[in-house]
Amino acid sequence: MADKIWQKTASDNAFHAKLVEKFTVGNDVQFDYALAKYDVLGSLAHCEMLHSIHLLKTEEWLLIEIELQKILEEIEENQFEIEPGIEDVHSQVEHLLIQRIGSVGKKIHSGRSRNDQVLTDLKLYLKTEILNIKSLTETVFNTLIQLSNQHKEVLLPGYTHLQIAMPSSFGLWFGAYAESLVDDLELLLASYNIINKNPLGSGAGYGTSFPLNRTLTTELLEFGALNVNSVYAQMTRGKSEKVMAMAMANLAGTLSKLSYDMCLYLNQNFGFISFPDTLTTGSSIMPHKKNPDVFEIMRARCNRIQALPNELILLTNNLPSGYHRDVQLTKESLFPAIQSLKECLEMLQFMLQHIEIKKDIVKDSKYNYMFSVESVNQQVLDGVPFRDAYKNIGLAIENQEFIPSYEINHTHEGSIGNLRNDLIEDAFKKVISKFN
Amino acid sequence: MADKIWQKTASDNAFHAKLVEKFTVGNDVQFDYALAKYDVLGSLAHCEMLHSIHLLKTEEWLLIEIELQKILEEIEENQFEIEPGIEDVHSQVEHLLIQRIGSVGKKIHSGRSRNDQVLTDLKLYLKTEILNIKSLTETVFNTLIQLSNQHKEVLLPGYTHLQIAMPSSFGLWFGAYAESLVDDLELLLASYNIINKNPLGSGAGYGTSFPLNRTLTTELLEFGALNVNSVYAQMTRGKSEKVMAMAMANLAGTLSKLSYDMCLYLNQNFGFISFPDTLTTGSSIMPHKKNPDVFEIMRARCNRIQALPNELILLTNNLPSGYHRDVQLTKESLFPAIQSLKECLEMLQFMLQHIEIKKDIVKDSKYNYMFSVESVNQQVLDGVPFRDAYKNIGLAIENQEFIPSYEINHTHEGSIGNLRNDLIEDAFKKVISKFN
Amino acid sequence: MADKIWQKTASDNAFHAKLVEKFTVGNDVQFDYALAKYDVLGSLAHCEMLHSIHLLKTEEWLLIEIELQKILEEIEENQFEIEPGIEDVHSQVEHLLIQRIGSVGKKIHSGRSRNDQVLTDLKLYLKTEILNIKSLTETVFNTLIQLSNQHKEVLLPGYTHLQIAMPSSFGLWFGAYAESLVDDLELLLASYNIINKNPLGSGAGYGTSFPLNRTLTTELLEFGALNVNSVYAQMTRGKSEKVMAMAMANLAGTLSKLSYDMCLYLNQNFGFISFPDTLTTGSSIMPHKKNPDVFEIMRARCNRIQALPNELILLTNNLPSGYHRDVQLTKESLFPAIQSLKECLEMLQFMLQHIEIKKDIVKDSKYNYMFSVESVNQQVLDGVPFRDAYKNIGLAIENQEFIPSYEINHTHEGSIGNLRNDLIEDAFKKVISKFN
Amino acid sequence: MADKIWQKTASDNAFHAKLVEKFTVGNDVQFDYALAKYDVLGSLAHCEMLHSIHLLKTEEWLLIEIELQKILEEIEENQFEIEPGIEDVHSQVEHLLIQRIGSVGKKIHSGRSRNDQVLTDLKLYLKTEILNIKSLTETVFNTLIQLSNQHKEVLLPGYTHLQIAMPSSFGLWFGAYAESLVDDLELLLASYNIINKNPLGSGAGYGTSFPLNRTLTTELLEFGALNVNSVYAQMTRGKSEKVMAMAMANLAGTLSKLSYDMCLYLNQNFGFISFPDTLTTGSSIMPHKKNPDVFEIMRARCNRIQALPNELILLTNNLPSGYHRDVQLTKESLFPAIQSLKECLEMLQFMLQHIEIKKDIVKDSKYNYMFSVESVNQQVLDGVPFRDAYKNIGLAIENQEFIPSYEINHTHEGSIGNLRNDLIEDAFKKVISKFN
Repeated sequence: MADKIWQKTASDNAFHAKLVEKFTVGNDVQFDYALAKYDVLGSLAHCEMLHSIHLLKTEEWLLIEIELQKILEEIEENQFEIEPGIEDVHSQVEHLLIQRIGSVGKKIHSGRSRNDQVLTDLKLYLKTEILNIKSLTETVFNTLIQLSNQHKEVLLPGYTHLQIAMPSSFGLWFGAYAESLVDDLELLLASYNIINKNPLGSGAGYGTSFPLNRTLTTELLEFGALNVNSVYAQMTRGKSEKVMAMAMANLAGTLSKLSYDMCLYLNQNFGFISFPDTLTTGSSIMPHKKNPDVFEIMRARCNRIQALPNELILLTNNLPSGYHRDVQLTKESLFPAIQSLKECLEMLQFMLQHIEIKKDIVKDSKYNYMFSVESVNQQVLDGVPFRDAYKNIGLAIENQEFIPSYEINHTHEGSIGNLRNDLIEDAFKKVISKFN
Repeated sequence: MADKIWQKTASDNAFHAKLVEKFTVGNDVQFDYALAKYDVLGSLAHCEMLHSIHLLKTEEWLLIEIELQKILEEIEENQFEIEPGIEDVHSQVEHLLIQRIGSVGKKIHSGRSRNDQVLTDLKLYLKTEILNIKSLTETVFNTLIQLSNQHKEVLLPGYTHLQIAMPSSFGLWFGAYAESLVDDLELLLASYNIINKNPLGSGAGYGTSFPLNRTLTTELLEFGALNVNSVYAQMTRGKSEKVMAMAMANLAGTLSKLSYDMCLYLNQNFGFISFPDTLTTGSSIMPHKKNPDVFEIMRARCNRIQALPNELILLTNNLPSGYHRDVQLTKESLFPAIQSLKECLEMLQFMLQHIEIKKDIVKDSKYNYMFSVESVNQQVLDGVPFRDAYKNIGLAIENQEFIPSYEINHTHEGSIGNLRNDLIEDAFKKVISKFN
Repeated sequence: MADKIWQKTASDNAFHAKLVEKFTVGNDVQFDYALAKYDVLGSLAHCEMLHSIHLLKTEEWLLIEIELQKILEEIEENQFEIEPGIEDVHSQVEHLLIQRIGSVGKKIHSGRSRNDQVLTDLKLYLKTEILNIKSLTETVFNTLIQLSNQHKEVLLPGYTHLQIAMPSSFGLWFGAYAESLVDDLELLLASYNIINKNPLGSGAGYGTSFPLNRTLTTELLEFGALNVNSVYAQMTRGKSEKVMAMAMANLAGTLSKLSYDMCLYLNQNFGFISFPDTLTTGSSIMPHKKNPDVFEIMRARCNRIQALPNELILLTNNLPSGYHRDVQLTKESLFPAIQSLKECLEMLQFMLQHIEIKKDIVKDSKYNYMFSVESVNQQVLDGVPFRDAYKNIGLAIENQEFIPSYEINHTHEGSIGNLRNDLIEDAFKKVISKFN
Repeated sequence: MADKIWQKTASDNAFHAKLVEKFTVGNDVQFDYALAKYDVLGSLAHCEMLHSIHLLKTEEWLLIEIELQKILEEIEENQFEIEPGIEDVHSQVEHLLIQRIGSVGKKIHSGRSRNDQVLTDLKLYLKTEILNIKSLTETVFNTLIQLSNQHKEVLLPGYTHLQIAMPSSFGLWFGAYAESLVDDLELLLASYNIINKNPLGSGAGYGTSFPLNRTLTTELLEFGALNVNSVYAQMTRGKSEKVMAMAMANLAGTLSKLSYDMCLYLNQNFGFISFPDTLTTGSSIMPHKKNPDVFEIMRARCNRIQALPNELILLTNNLPSGYHRDVQLTKESLFPAIQSLKECLEMLQFMLQHIEIKKDIVKDSKYNYMFSVESVNQQVLDGVPFRDAYKNIGLAIENQEFIPSYEINHTHEGSIGNLRNDLIEDAFKKVISKFN
């Protein structure tokens, strides 16, 4: 086994060391690959800055830059691999560099610690994934708005306490989830703003004696601002992941709820919607059975994602300030969840494109009484106090004299007859515009 | 027991009804009082709007307005109480109104459901409390910055892996927690933006047939925007509480970590800080014992608050769209946590005013090696490659030839010698300015 | 404000002390009352033991015993109250004793610390409450078995993926929840076994120099065994609460699921069960509306209880060994949850007594295909390979030649026709018998 | 892509089907391999039972049995692999069987559904893993007891509120964690009892019309009892995983706390223990630095495991009775956690074997006052009331007349001088003996 770069001499207790390494590294390497690209980008900015403060000569800088660019290409072409005995992505990049350009490659570690290096990589990666989630959310949002507009005339029973209560519509239902995404993006934006700050230069959490220009690396890496205080910069490890998990959990909450509605509406006792056979799991001896596997798995995935903030809190809570290796494990929790959430958004988009809507749901007599509130309100609009109107209709129903009117005349903002999806779209665009 | 307002006739099964009511109402009434003020404010706006759309005559509106203002005064003077047999704050307000001005009082319920009424009250209350938390956070922030500036020269050992690692300072330590509050307010702001939307007019979650002017009530209640879609407006019940809990949990995470540091630094093996005897719990036979009860309780309270988002997710998850009474219980979880967090912020402010700093901590010989990194870096600045400089100092130490230099010359942004608290203050002010 | 007993001199900084006390004590006193009885019981055993090792003279012991018995009576008659300035229940008992019998009362603190005293009280209390929960569970179990037997002939659609799948029955449904309680008691029993160990004599967590006879107090207090190691005894604070919370969460999981079924089955699209009007919340203008408030609140309460283990883990995790005041707050989380769970069990018992069962549910044509599996199986029993039989029926259905047979002939253990509730009852009795 | 076995005809929408399958199957296959062995064992028992009720002829049964045994061997020799287009382990086994012995292989599915098949596999697997965890715990327990006995004379400062409080010892410290494992096994035993019940024969959750002999398969598979009720049997999916996760979380709580102590005691300000250089991560320029990476990662892994019960609750909560595909995802959460916990136990055993104990810790003058309680108690044993003795020593200390006596004479059960590890060992053996 090759030495780790920072070990002066080979261990004479190779077996013990191997055991310790196996246990402490665990599954980390597989998650580490996601950071490779950002590790090189971080090094490129760091070296440009080192050059600007005369810690790298121009020729050294150029030599390093050219080689790092090559490594970046290799990463993007999936030709980058951690060699046996190399600890992780960050060591591998440094290892390649030294192998190719010799000892000048060692200089890229000047004024940088493993802690701020990894933290920088992580933040660059999370930023990118937040923007990916934002884009997928936008696609789903547009589809929901389109479905809301398209089906705005189709009535749906509205439930309270899971009891048939009032007329609703597919316009309201689809639009509701679209508007939910507006608020979800608001939280995602906050996580973006928190993560979008540069920790590079904070060293192991206490700064360094090098005259670094952290403002320059902030600009080069296109971070929105500095994580100013070096001790705080280190605290953002764990906190960044937690805050992003909260935003993801909130978005997952919306998808989980929609999935639950889908499963319920697909149930034959409800029967409000359908999907093509290829998108549900059937049973040839129970032809009415259309198992909503996609939405069960989507709900389950999103419920796991909702458990994530708590997991990250448990992982990082009650630790005093300063780096602890515990934080290595945030990757194992967060990174697969990011992929899972993106897949859920893509799959939701796909399913929404194929949803089929039942048209005459509310004509079933079991929904008759749902129109009684309309009659009460009509009396109120004609001047009867609410409590009296309520009593009148109640007596009519009791005496079986109630005749429902199926005509719905809701006109206020956000009601069946006046969805104001334009306002929802405006609000969405406003949040989107704040991501930069 | 008096009837609930919406019951037409007295129950003939009084005992059963009582049992059910006791179980379902539970402890809700005590939390409900916090909403009384906002219930009246919501009704005032609703009535002005009803008048504007001619559902209340001018004289009716004025009669109601005058009486609601009186009730508001009674609430603010603590003269408001839920009478026996009245279900909750909302019924009590309506009950008082009808008692005092007769059947015209019944009209305030036109175009409004219990669901959007309570939701409006809740959001007005949460908005106020978010602003309260924001103000308290601002006070603590200012104290932390002041302490950071005041003690910026005092060195402190910096730990990684809880091992003595590098020189830090009280300037960095206090400043780190100040900067943490900047990010915490970013999330609080997002929760504010999400909550600061008007659900009034969404009825029981499906709108109404009344020609309400929801834009008008949005303005009257000073909400930042509409919860447009009626179905979504109802979904914000539970979600508002959850999002606020996430923001609170994040802030509580900062306080918990600071409390942990306080307990550790007060420990005699560390001994970095102290507090006057009245603020710790002593033991006359162990005079060195200064139990940090305040910080243990603060940490514990803040750790409970960090459990809150998960509790609210469990309470509201996997429920299909539409109102479910389950959400009533969010108040029991959230409201006491709000008070607790505010008390923690107040107590932290009080304790910070009395913190005592040890001056010569790092002169203890056990901290000597912490200065070795400085020596490595000095060599690097003199042109030696990092890995080689590291080896040189390592050998010097091995040969017991290492002489630490206590002079710290950190100059980059966010380091011991250049805290840039001004940048942190600017960032804080920028977030504060977005709360409106 | 009176001094705490262990303060030698009055504080000269009364205001600060008050502030600290208010913050650290918080709401603890109200939860503390639950421990009063057990505090006296613990002291009685402790004093008898002190007498046995000659640390109390016989006359001292008798004097103390008589007075403690009086205080115990006062507690049981609700005449016990914490006086202003007295910190908590434990100080109040000691205060009363000294007030009434003079300085000999001070001797009861010999060989005991506040830590092991409170821990003993807590464990005695939790033991009692576990037995209370066990008894209430037994009552519900019996009702479920009785309902299962009573309605074993009534068919119910069985769902998979929330899709109509196979015939089930009320016999199976009620019996399933009964059997769930068997497993729930198994976990409750484990928590009982863990909690039912004596920590008295472990002092502040490191034992004492007094020659205590801990085996004697174990017998006197009827604990099942000793918490032997003094350091571990202290560790059981927090852990006892957590383990009990896990058992409660598991039981609450069963009640939550049953409540969910109740809400779904009461929904008009399902319509499998009903309750008398007094036990649901109606609406006179929607006479079919029977809001299942009781089950919504039961589900919500039980979902909060399911959040409890995590809250207690967060509260106590990542603290090194040794007492920390953080654990004081476990009471605020756990004690109300115990009351809530007991109320849920009582209310469930009440509701089950009034449940009304719909008889002809499966005759509705939408349930026809659910009988197709029966036909497949009949062919298999006649010798056709399963996959072929499946194909045959599938084709019959496709060609609309399928004629369902409503006769269900399930004979194996645990099936519609052979519930074997006797086995479930035996298993229940077996677990019950292990609580002693 | 090959068809799933239960699909009659190839899908004409292959792309959609593939998309749906990719999303719904996700990472499941990799976890599924753990179940392969148990799937064959379950099928062997099922076929023997089918033969006993004459649903398989003797020659059919023998043919199947021989081939299943072969497949079992292949699995144990890692020669078993899921072929492309085969959905999962269960289909692969069936696929191989049919491939090798023709259509008689199809008969093993008689009287069995995928639901009870997988549930049986899962329970057999979890049972095995519980026993594995039990054995590893036993090894660690024995080491802790041995260390406690070995180092019982070595004093250690005992802390309360993280303040130096009273003398403790390594005997107490190691013994405490040993005793903690006793209680942890109690909960593990409960989970074993709950999981160790046979669900086979419950079909898709509603039983079948086959005259199965479920008592026979219970015996053949060596389950402790039947999951009697078919509906409940299905409910144990999710619940089994949750209960096991609770037991694992509790055990992980002990390991996490011990890891925390290790990190703190390795810290140079404490400096109570050490480990050989190969087992800590050093830094050649900070030779005192011994980063406790193993214990940081162990703590972090165990804290993730403590988040597991909550994750499983979130995944399965608020679903009505009956199978939902959501439960598929419990494997992704639980299975890796099982491996991780076993690795932690192995690593802890390894580390304990190499722990080094500092001998003269308490001679440092900062620990002087910790002996003051001893002096108080000595006075009490000489007849002075506790509160007065306390005051005497307090005054002596105040007047600087206090002379500590380093002689510790603790004699009661569970104290420094009388650890009673024999009682702890007895208790451990008693719990171990109940696993059968």
